[in-house]
Amino acid sequence: MFNIALFGAGRIGQVHAVNIAGHKETTLYSVIDPYQPNAVALAEKYQAKVQTPEEAMQDPNVDGVLIASATDTHADLIELAAKNKKVIFCEKPVHLDLERVRQCLKSVKENDVPLFIGFNRRYDPQFRHLKNLFQQGAIGKAESLIITSRDPSPPPAEYVKVSGGMFRDMTIHDFDMARFMIGEEPCSVFAQGSNVVDPAIGQAGDIDTAFIILKFPSGAMATISNSRRSGYGYDQRIELHGEKGLLTAGNIKENSVELLSEVGCLSAKPEYFFLQRYNEAYKAEWEHFVDILAGRATSETTGTDGELALYLADKALESLKTGKEVKL
Amino acid sequence: MFNIALFGAGRIGQVHAVNIAGHKETTLYSVIDPYQPNAVALAEKYQAKVQTPEEAMQDPNVDGVLIASATDTHADLIELAAKNKKVIFCEKPVHLDLERVRQCLKSVKENDVPLFIGFNRRYDPQFRHLKNLFQQGAIGKAESLIITSRDPSPPPAEYVKVSGGMFRDMTIHDFDMARFMIGEEPCSVFAQGSNVVDPAIGQAGDIDTAFIILKFPSGAMATISNSRRSGYGYDQRIELHGEKGLLTAGNIKENSVELLSEVGCLSAKPEYFFLQRYNEAYKAEWEHFVDILAGRATSETTGTDGELALYLADKALESLKTGKEVKL
Amino acid sequence: MFNIALFGAGRIGQVHAVNIAGHKETTLYSVIDPYQPNAVALAEKYQAKVQTPEEAMQDPNVDGVLIASATDTHADLIELAAKNKKVIFCEKPVHLDLERVRQCLKSVKENDVPLFIGFNRRYDPQFRHLKNLFQQGAIGKAESLIITSRDPSPPPAEYVKVSGGMFRDMTIHDFDMARFMIGEEPCSVFAQGSNVVDPAIGQAGDIDTAFIILKFPSGAMATISNSRRSGYGYDQRIELHGEKGLLTAGNIKENSVELLSEVGCLSAKPEYFFLQRYNEAYKAEWEHFVDILAGRATSETTGTDGELALYLADKALESLKTGKEVKL
Amino acid sequence: MFNIALFGAGRIGQVHAVNIAGHKETTLYSVIDPYQPNAVALAEKYQAKVQTPEEAMQDPNVDGVLIASATDTHADLIELAAKNKKVIFCEKPVHLDLERVRQCLKSVKENDVPLFIGFNRRYDPQFRHLKNLFQQGAIGKAESLIITSRDPSPPPAEYVKVSGGMFRDMTIHDFDMARFMIGEEPCSVFAQGSNVVDPAIGQAGDIDTAFIILKFPSGAMATISNSRRSGYGYDQRIELHGEKGLLTAGNIKENSVELLSEVGCLSAKPEYFFLQRYNEAYKAEWEHFVDILAGRATSETTGTDGELALYLADKALESLKTGKEVKL
Repeated sequence: MFNIALFGAGRIGQVHAVNIAGHKETTLYSVIDPYQPNAVALAEKYQAKVQTPEEAMQDPNVDGVLIASATDTHADLIELAAKNKKVIFCEKPVHLDLERVRQCLKSVKENDVPLFIGFNRRYDPQFRHLKNLFQQGAIGKAESLIITSRDPSPPPAEYVKVSGGMFRDMTIHDFDMARFMIGEEPCSVFAQGSNVVDPAIGQAGDIDTAFIILKFPSGAMATISNSRRSGYGYDQRIELHGEKGLLTAGNIKENSVELLSEVGCLSAKPEYFFLQRYNEAYKAEWEHFVDILAGRATSETTGTDGELALYLADKALESLKTGKEVKL
Repeated sequence: MFNIALFGAGRIGQVHAVNIAGHKETTLYSVIDPYQPNAVALAEKYQAKVQTPEEAMQDPNVDGVLIASATDTHADLIELAAKNKKVIFCEKPVHLDLERVRQCLKSVKENDVPLFIGFNRRYDPQFRHLKNLFQQGAIGKAESLIITSRDPSPPPAEYVKVSGGMFRDMTIHDFDMARFMIGEEPCSVFAQGSNVVDPAIGQAGDIDTAFIILKFPSGAMATISNSRRSGYGYDQRIELHGEKGLLTAGNIKENSVELLSEVGCLSAKPEYFFLQRYNEAYKAEWEHFVDILAGRATSETTGTDGELALYLADKALESLKTGKEVKL
Repeated sequence: MFNIALFGAGRIGQVHAVNIAGHKETTLYSVIDPYQPNAVALAEKYQAKVQTPEEAMQDPNVDGVLIASATDTHADLIELAAKNKKVIFCEKPVHLDLERVRQCLKSVKENDVPLFIGFNRRYDPQFRHLKNLFQQGAIGKAESLIITSRDPSPPPAEYVKVSGGMFRDMTIHDFDMARFMIGEEPCSVFAQGSNVVDPAIGQAGDIDTAFIILKFPSGAMATISNSRRSGYGYDQRIELHGEKGLLTAGNIKENSVELLSEVGCLSAKPEYFFLQRYNEAYKAEWEHFVDILAGRATSETTGTDGELALYLADKALESLKTGKEVKL
Repeated sequence: MFNIALFGAGRIGQVHAVNIAGHKETTLYSVIDPYQPNAVALAEKYQAKVQTPEEAMQDPNVDGVLIASATDTHADLIELAAKNKKVIFCEKPVHLDLERVRQCLKSVKENDVPLFIGFNRRYDPQFRHLKNLFQQGAIGKAESLIITSRDPSPPPAEYVKVSGGMFRDMTIHDFDMARFMIGEEPCSVFAQGSNVVDPAIGQAGDIDTAFIILKFPSGAMATISNSRRSGYGYDQRIELHGEKGLLTAGNIKENSVELLSEVGCLSAKPEYFFLQRYNEAYKAEWEHFVDILAGRATSETTGTDGELALYLADKALESLKTGKEVKL
């Protein structure tokens, strides 16, 4: 049984708490959150301790840490955990500044501790199944990848201001997905963007709609289509075209009921947002992390994956500003 | 916190154990199974006791019982539980003999204990959503109901011999669904059947493929299409046609991935069988049962529902034998 | 070039006129209709003659006749055409009275002329493709056939009165389809019906909603689900279940456009009615008939097919009245 | 009745011949093709004359010309037709050289004759229906447009050499579609391409796979995804995302039959290529052109549309070569 210290008792922390407590090899040992009422409530629900970051990191009973706290605390907590030889699960991103990320990963390497970065979509059963079929040769060599990612509704402008911008905050998932699916490092990026969803986002210096084109050394290309607001739920689709055909992973609808009437055929929307759509992915992430804890696996999604996705976000921003394809 | 004694540690008992242990208001208190190794294994997994039927029934710590044991023990266990004033969750059917069912329900009534019969499909989110839309008037008055239910592969002939026959064993779910959806008691039944899937089933005196027509007092009709073997997974669909249109609830596919190639578009099969397809239904059943335990609800699916579904199965068998519509 | 005399200048006659005139081997030679304005208008459009029945039948320039006139004239016209050695295309049914049908077919046989009965659905590309896949062994031996046929809206009660009743007027297509798909003659029929769509239909002595079960010597069974009013267009589906899987032919939607919004995903209805849905089937019928005219093929859909479908309609009516399975 | 002279008796000319001859207001008067056997065969089939270009242009009986000849003859024939005051239907493109296009359109303007350019996809019932819904406000203001266009299999390298390149030959349809759907002129274009389908195409100096991003003054953006080889038929889809939701127009499948078996659910591929998919579009084009001939409409798709699509192709090529967004 591995004892887990959970940093962050907010929305995503609560999702992880369910999986930690539900897994037969892990126990939710302690909860750490600067906002005490949240920490206490979550700890009570699972009969866990409330700890400070220092207590948790130095507690010899803690085997692994799950960092789901505010983004700007991630790098510091990773370093602290590394120094204390804890196995680390950290929500993306490591940090919004690429240099800080590299510094932090150096520390992880020096301490030789396993680090898993929570790019949830890699663990979505749909996308994973698509990748497996691709790797089994279903469509031959990859040629074009089309990633669609639209959030149901835009975040408040206050959030946008501290988010690092759309590419570092939202598109970073798609950059990771492109690397994951194609299995190569892109050699160029071009980005185009618009502020059409909410003027407040533009006033905060960001865009809310984007198209990005990546090119890979093999000649394969990827395009990412992003919007901060779909109007119809969480739109998460992948289309991978290869020499022998096409693999697609569509949205998961809220239900399978259809109503046929004079106005047409009405079926359900895609599931609302990431907590619904990626519920199974969070479970699968946790299963992989327990395998890492138990020494049965090494981390599939490492700090380097976090670093390279952020690097692509930075370069996409450079392309957006210069109107040029940026070579990588 | 309600303590639950679970009768039956087999496949379906294990599904219920997950839900009992996972619900914040219930604890898996004890496991009872004539086959000790199963009882012990399940009890150990959830740190529960192993009890005999008598111990469990007489244990004042037991608040509710979940009867998921062999079919022929259901009625006896219900009576025993009723006498001991336990709240009762019993898997369908109460018994394969209608007189025995009535006798048993009499005992439940005399002891005035709540009894919930596990017709899982009523709690499937798809079918429930369809019924809700119907009740909200989406298609007006019901006219035709088409229920499709095909198992992935046939049971062994040994099972068939003790199953009570296809209508009492398999179609009973569909009889219940027809009553549930239309909201009336049928006034006639006609049944037609064939033995085309496996000759051993015919040798065991049963059919493996059936079509049934029910008529209701309002003029609405239902048809049930059954097969013991689909060849493509668990086929569970409902189509309800009314004066303003059609409501359908389709199968849930194993995944949302499609492969388009020279041979066409290949997508996934329906989920394999009831453990996959009705996983959410079992959770929803348990939530309803906890509401009954807590006095927040009365049983939506009662012994009478069990009795009436069995009555329809008996009358369908009479129709199959006589080639006549049987008035109810 | 074959000259065709077209009997009937109504809705269905006009559909056939397009195909006759459009085929490179046939000419619309003359139009015959007791209502002169219709005959004249259609003849003018295609530069054809207007003739009386007698003139057309005796005209040596006429190679083939297409009978799309009122149902009660079909048998007389077939006999007249047979005596005059014309190749005959007759819309279903030959006649509403089975004895009259047999008498008429005797005359056709004596005169040894080809007779094609227009069961349009056999020529629908979807259903034909399904049958081809079945015959190629895609699902092995047939076990269950489910035919859904719902008209968009009910006919006026006046029509119902002279229609021969729902089974002879509407279900006759489905009886023919069941024979066509299974490839055997059914050995029993059971029919159940209701008057729930329009009370005027009930007052006219007919039903408007029906479920029928057919059983075949091989053990295969078929069910037919009919309604005079869908509320959402023309619902024409087939589902054929066999030992290795399931073949389905779904509706053709009016278009492929979908609208995803807050209320869900709205797509198009099925095409409105037979003129839209079976437009391609009418063309394919005509191509087959030209092959008959040219001696390149013998009639695939004969008078006997018309006779046997009507026989099933009669026996279904007997079952509806007696509440018994009728052996055939 | 309008007499039409058809230039070009090849594959696409034959499609137009069917529509010209089938329309009640037009007659196929003559066929012109430098390859005489083709001209003669087509003329005989429709009882039309065979003419030289000069004869046809000077023939006072000719009301309109349909130019479906080799691309490099289009501009010359348009000018000749304009001088002879014929109403002109010309297949895209006017010419592969933008200056030549402008010169040619000047001549059309001076002679004040109607010119219709055959961008067939604008007349596809699916895309037209999508645009109508958009214009009726179904999704509010447009934000993102995704155009997918993949041919079933690549052309021979010989064709590629004289095609003007992928953007002028294939993507030109998508540039036109982007202008048509959004209803604005784009203000920038970025193009990325690869040669991954067939090395011979690369050796011929062209690409075979492309992603393009257009930006419009309103902030709306479009992306085009192209491949010379899908591997699964003709992939022609449009997705238009706006402030209130999403409109999509999917592929038309070859049939509606599905086969469910142990390996999954197999349905049909998209229709093979443009002759199948856009058959209805060619008919609708012709109906619009007849309205122009009859003075009931002015050309919806003009020489300027041809010019602007080519301009976008040229600028996309510039972007591909420079790796920069090109401002328009």
